[in-house]
Amino acid sequence: MKTTSFADLFYRVRKNRPLVHHITNYVTVSDCANITICAGGAPVMADAPEEVVEMAALAGALVLNIGTLSTAQVESMLLAGRMANERGIPVILDPVGAGATQFRTVTARRLLEDLEIAILKGNAGEIGVIAGAEATVRGVDSCGLTGDPVSIARDFAELKEITVAISGSTDIITNGRHTLLVDNGHPMMGSISGTGCMASSVTGTFAAESRDFVTAAAAALAAFGIAGERAAAEAMGPFTFKTALFDELANLTPEDIAAGAKIRSP
Amino acid sequence: MKTTSFADLFYRVRKNRPLVHHITNYVTVSDCANITICAGGAPVMADAPEEVVEMAALAGALVLNIGTLSTAQVESMLLAGRMANERGIPVILDPVGAGATQFRTVTARRLLEDLEIAILKGNAGEIGVIAGAEATVRGVDSCGLTGDPVSIARDFAELKEITVAISGSTDIITNGRHTLLVDNGHPMMGSISGTGCMASSVTGTFAAESRDFVTAAAAALAAFGIAGERAAAEAMGPFTFKTALFDELANLTPEDIAAGAKIRSP
Amino acid sequence: MKTTSFADLFYRVRKNRPLVHHITNYVTVSDCANITICAGGAPVMADAPEEVVEMAALAGALVLNIGTLSTAQVESMLLAGRMANERGIPVILDPVGAGATQFRTVTARRLLEDLEIAILKGNAGEIGVIAGAEATVRGVDSCGLTGDPVSIARDFAELKEITVAISGSTDIITNGRHTLLVDNGHPMMGSISGTGCMASSVTGTFAAESRDFVTAAAAALAAFGIAGERAAAEAMGPFTFKTALFDELANLTPEDIAAGAKIRSP
Repeated sequence: MKTTSFADLFYRVRKNRPLVHHITNYVTVSDCANITICAGGAPVMADAPEEVVEMAALAGALVLNIGTLSTAQVESMLLAGRMANERGIPVILDPVGAGATQFRTVTARRLLEDLEIAILKGNAGEIGVIAGAEATVRGVDSCGLTGDPVSIARDFAELKEITVAISGSTDIITNGRHTLLVDNGHPMMGSISGTGCMASSVTGTFAAESRDFVTAAAAALAAFGIAGERAAAEAMGPFTFKTALFDELANLTPEDIAAGAKIRSP
Repeated sequence: MKTTSFADLFYRVRKNRPLVHHITNYVTVSDCANITICAGGAPVMADAPEEVVEMAALAGALVLNIGTLSTAQVESMLLAGRMANERGIPVILDPVGAGATQFRTVTARRLLEDLEIAILKGNAGEIGVIAGAEATVRGVDSCGLTGDPVSIARDFAELKEITVAISGSTDIITNGRHTLLVDNGHPMMGSISGTGCMASSVTGTFAAESRDFVTAAAAALAAFGIAGERAAAEAMGPFTFKTALFDELANLTPEDIAAGAKIRSP
Repeated sequence: MKTTSFADLFYRVRKNRPLVHHITNYVTVSDCANITICAGGAPVMADAPEEVVEMAALAGALVLNIGTLSTAQVESMLLAGRMANERGIPVILDPVGAGATQFRTVTARRLLEDLEIAILKGNAGEIGVIAGAEATVRGVDSCGLTGDPVSIARDFAELKEITVAISGSTDIITNGRHTLLVDNGHPMMGSISGTGCMASSVTGTFAAESRDFVTAAAAALAAFGIAGERAAAEAMGPFTFKTALFDELANLTPEDIAAGAKIRSP
């Protein structure tokens, strides 16, 4: 596997400003648009069946997020996803709340089955449920996973030939053969709505500029995590934290990533 | 009626982190999710008919908000509401904009008719219109109510066997037999979009932890109001106010409620 | 043409607090609601076919924004637009992303054809595509326009008998006979999602109080631009900028507009 420097990738993202097409939930959509800009991408949100194929074809990456799922949106995800697959545009799937309801679990599995997903990114509960492990999800929060998350992620990544990213205090990123752990981040990231969704948007932005998806996801989660660490140092509560999180990511440089990324092998 | 200390209730909310299922509008949904977290709850937003029954069954409270109503959403509200009723999960209804259009007025009344609503929470105009008083609503703002709002709320609460909460400079909470007034809050709360919706989310979060809905709504509105008072003291405009409002609620302690709540009988 | 002082118009907006009905996208809708309040208006968002006619009839202006378009929403836009036209309520159209997909381009043209639009407000790429010039749009961003934007705007405004506003580092506002340029604003306005949408909401708020749409749009874009200049002076990044943008517009006075507006003839 070609190793691209994390900092170099971030530099490319900033230089090329990839278009990141989102089909996503209406709760955190504004945060996703803004964090994509802060990361260096150009977000566009579009989910009408009349236009998703055309929009996806223009994009550098396609982010599918099932946070407020509807049947109509699933159809648009499939339409956009097929076009992305045809063009070799990476598709990132965030299975928000998979495990909480059958509709979400079944949809996440269907998207994984019908599309070539580049990166499946969720919390331990969501990924666990999808991978068939013993895991529970309450609403959109992970409530635990029985077994070793690294092994579960690795086996599922290998089986499906995808990259799996499990976000948590240590993020796990693996394609089955190559695994990275990211220790960046801060507990305050759990004090606001949407950090999981935002992490997926940043991941999509980075994946647009590298076909090495393990590196892309690790660099994205490290960058987002470093911004979180810096934001927490200034915050007086969850919303001064949130404000600072956007600012810090926007102000982050490739050099900051080179210096601050805590990326390691398991 | 069992009187539970307002501070104790807040303590329980923080300890148990109840899941609050929202079927709500797409304008203030992000604010509602975040304020629920700040209050101590775990928000989940889901409105697809395929999943609302399952999601409602998991929840500690269900918040129905008609701010951007659609026919499809009404059906989901009825599905989720019936499950909540079956399980004894409190349902909070915020009839945003009732009185401004027939669709909103009729829908609010239908939800009140078809579901057992625990707490109906709106502004004076909205509640007045629904209760059949002379009241006017412009867009989503109350434009006055003829008559004594306390009597109107009390009579309607008694008739419908619900708790009614009218937000305003003094909040009125009543189940017909027991009435509380809350004097917390600040005029700056009217300078941003969504404070009414957020107040309903906080009310739902508290109602998840007490079946004494008058106490729950009063404690919720007092907590939210105290956060507003503190935020206003720091604010340089509506958005520094908004940022501080989230921070202050998140940082509020049960002791702060005990010391700062201005809750009284009429 | 009657020239109304820009400051006087702002004073009237603040005094009358016009209701501004939006049918808009779910990405920036919260920002649009809040900026409308900061400008001095009362926002209401409603897109159900059952209520848009009634809501539009109550409004001082109707803002149509195609940022996350759907077929159902187009029908609601036509219903609301026809009522607004019947009552002489100004309709503002923001053709977000026209040119990026056929669906958006065709819809923008259809709305222009079927409704009497008071103000068409977009970026250079969007307006260029709609006017039939050589222009490109990537996602929701303008990527250039061949030809003189002032001439293109002027000719199209004259042809369609509308006011055209092109936002950019210099905003162009014209009804074909009368043209104004606005030099207010700051590059940081491009560092967040939604400034284009917000500018349209502010424009709608001002248009509710003046039938001289060139003056209304110029005053609105100047006010919003001055707020942006002031916000940039305080900002440490895009989100402290965004917070300050709302605060500064809310705190702006008619005197500030009189002193700070950079409005000139071409």
